[in-house]
Amino acid sequence: MKEVGIGIAGFGTVGGGVLSILRSHAREIEARLGARIVVRRVAVRDPEKERAIDLDRSLLTTRYQDLVEDPTVQVVVELVGGTTEARSLVLAALGAGKHVVTANKALLAFHGDEIFRLAQEKGVDVYYEGAVAGGVPVIRTLREALASDRIQAIHGIVNGTTNFILTSMAEKGEPLEKALAEAQRLGYAEADPTLDVSGGDAAQKLCLLAQLAFGARLAPQDVLTEGIMGLLPEDFAWAKEFGYALKLLAVARRSGPNGGDGLIEARVHPAFIPGDSMLAGVRGAMNAVLLRSEALGPTLLFGQGAGAMPTGSAVVADIIDLSRNLLSGSPGRVPLPPAASLVRLRSHAEIRTGYYLRFSVKDAPGVLARIAATLARHGISIAAVQQREHEEEGAPVPLVIVTHQAREADLRSAIGEIDAYDTTAAPTRLIRIEQV
Amino acid sequence: MKEVGIGIAGFGTVGGGVLSILRSHAREIEARLGARIVVRRVAVRDPEKERAIDLDRSLLTTRYQDLVEDPTVQVVVELVGGTTEARSLVLAALGAGKHVVTANKALLAFHGDEIFRLAQEKGVDVYYEGAVAGGVPVIRTLREALASDRIQAIHGIVNGTTNFILTSMAEKGEPLEKALAEAQRLGYAEADPTLDVSGGDAAQKLCLLAQLAFGARLAPQDVLTEGIMGLLPEDFAWAKEFGYALKLLAVARRSGPNGGDGLIEARVHPAFIPGDSMLAGVRGAMNAVLLRSEALGPTLLFGQGAGAMPTGSAVVADIIDLSRNLLSGSPGRVPLPPAASLVRLRSHAEIRTGYYLRFSVKDAPGVLARIAATLARHGISIAAVQQREHEEEGAPVPLVIVTHQAREADLRSAIGEIDAYDTTAAPTRLIRIEQV
Repeated sequence: MKEVGIGIAGFGTVGGGVLSILRSHAREIEARLGARIVVRRVAVRDPEKERAIDLDRSLLTTRYQDLVEDPTVQVVVELVGGTTEARSLVLAALGAGKHVVTANKALLAFHGDEIFRLAQEKGVDVYYEGAVAGGVPVIRTLREALASDRIQAIHGIVNGTTNFILTSMAEKGEPLEKALAEAQRLGYAEADPTLDVSGGDAAQKLCLLAQLAFGARLAPQDVLTEGIMGLLPEDFAWAKEFGYALKLLAVARRSGPNGGDGLIEARVHPAFIPGDSMLAGVRGAMNAVLLRSEALGPTLLFGQGAGAMPTGSAVVADIIDLSRNLLSGSPGRVPLPPAASLVRLRSHAEIRTGYYLRFSVKDAPGVLARIAATLARHGISIAAVQQREHEEEGAPVPLVIVTHQAREADLRSAIGEIDAYDTTAAPTRLIRIEQV
Repeated sequence: MKEVGIGIAGFGTVGGGVLSILRSHAREIEARLGARIVVRRVAVRDPEKERAIDLDRSLLTTRYQDLVEDPTVQVVVELVGGTTEARSLVLAALGAGKHVVTANKALLAFHGDEIFRLAQEKGVDVYYEGAVAGGVPVIRTLREALASDRIQAIHGIVNGTTNFILTSMAEKGEPLEKALAEAQRLGYAEADPTLDVSGGDAAQKLCLLAQLAFGARLAPQDVLTEGIMGLLPEDFAWAKEFGYALKLLAVARRSGPNGGDGLIEARVHPAFIPGDSMLAGVRGAMNAVLLRSEALGPTLLFGQGAGAMPTGSAVVADIIDLSRNLLSGSPGRVPLPPAASLVRLRSHAEIRTGYYLRFSVKDAPGVLARIAATLARHGISIAAVQQREHEEEGAPVPLVIVTHQAREADLRSAIGEIDAYDTTAAPTRLIRIEQV
């Protein structure tokens, strides 16, 4: 039987998943592929470390370079993580004419240009299904199923940690700190959760999606990024009252009149979405990506966004796909993402959405009138207003206003003014409304 | 620029969609493929017919054989429908060494064996993403993304007509006849809706899914098939009361203890599913397929199941995929479904699910006790009971019992006995409960 040789760099959670799937499904994979996938080399930091999965010690090395130099390794599987060592390894592997599978979103978000350019030059493939939404086949769908279509918008719940936290807050009325602690206890959040709760992780993934969907070359810092810190249980209560769910969304879309003026928006932020939408039903640590395209209309892909087995499964599917290319002599069968950006980014100031605004105001006559007048002066039109009774005499009262679509810059100016009023007790909370 | 020549047979709704997508997205397709897709021949029944889309009359022919004989046609796109002419055409095209794209589920469900065998022999590809759930990339996902995994279960809402009808009944409390008439008025249901409402259409699609997921060779008549006729608005009210939604589900799963004894179940029937599940949120004419696999866990794919553009888009994605194989000299890159069945079908009598039972009984002492005793005698254990007051003196009253998991044969025997009682006013309605 024919063989495809692979080398695995980095052997943590996902690496264990990959090896375990390769072993337990070896028979099915051989039957479907007509060849055997053989692990020739595994590069690890500490070869003495105890591991949950049994590994032939003669395969182990501490030098990533051994994978690159081994002529029997055709595919390098990068599971090192980070962007320094991983970058050197991937560039060396591509330089040596080897194909690469990676689940490293940060690497591709920050160094995709360089990596795809070298792969193109060397005529080899880079597959990365595991980098976005774990085992959910969104990369493959964008690359192949939608090759016939023109994508208009992506709305994704692509960070399981924050979705777990927001689901707990929505369903149990918990404060964020408690939901976060629970997520950490259950292993859904890391000890330092910054990358997740800041929206940074979702922004990296959005870069990869926008590249495939629109040919956009974005860096994570180009994405308007707001995290979930500062959300209160009452925001969820208000969301429900207005018929919405509150989710951390990653959004990339063609914008402008008539479905596009050549510009795209790219943003990650908490958003009110219709309570009966499919995305609103995505609970806990699950991920989902909603694609809207011209011919197909809406397509939603949903599943587990992380974990040894889901991500491992995506990596192995990539290895199989690459092996099919190798065995049929057709690497480069599906083109790599374009090196130059085909679209430009709309300035964040020009983005238009509806807004939920939670003001904290002193209970005095004329406060609502003044806020409404300020919004009107900036061209912002009000869709709904609700004011609660204050809980104790003299305490600030919450005032909630839902607006129609408005320009981000106008909204920001209006809020700037309102937050400076002496009747305003705390900075106004702003959550965008997204019709998914 | 390189060219791939295609011939289209049948030029109805989907054919129009295919041509319109090929035209309007020609630039994107050429950029992604590095080649032009050229329509060389279009076979139609009536070349004089007025068409919504402009078509070069010199391409038209009334003979399907012209597509097969044209040496410049490399891919035959079968959109004829039915199983007679379509079968002859596809076999002739494969026989002549041409690749085939089809959206014809009936053809593949009834004649897949013959078609895949010939394709295998000739070393050509048969792609059929459009045959199940329109543009939702479920075929591609089963064939490629899940190639690394072992699938345990498929739960699909794969018939848009019936899902539209059931959604209307659930949300508006309408009787079935009214919802069906509305679906016909809006073009979601055909004048003769039998194939849809009987579950037959869903059963054909299930055969294709089960083949890819489990290597099962099933004919539609092997599938336990029950349609939606006979469902009453009160069934939806009861579903809601017990926390369920009521959907027409297509189910194929490995069954038996410890996740499989080598047998699979295949069935299409109305089912109670948890009201907070993703499938419960699939409304109107939309389709969704939930796959459960060993490594990946649950994956849901959702989108438009029918229509010129969604199905057309799937057909064009297949044409592009096939063109990539052709251009890189790798037809047969992904193996065709296995010709022999790798699994056997569990006898319908041995299937175990929970049941919702709606009895119509005379309001007399001891009726409930007698029914409960009969169920117990057949080993069926009761999870919940509800009885309504009768509306007028002497009229039958509804009695609803929800059971724990029971064997279909035992349930059938018990219902047979109960329906023969003189206190039973009408045949008992049985709806299976499925934990999706």
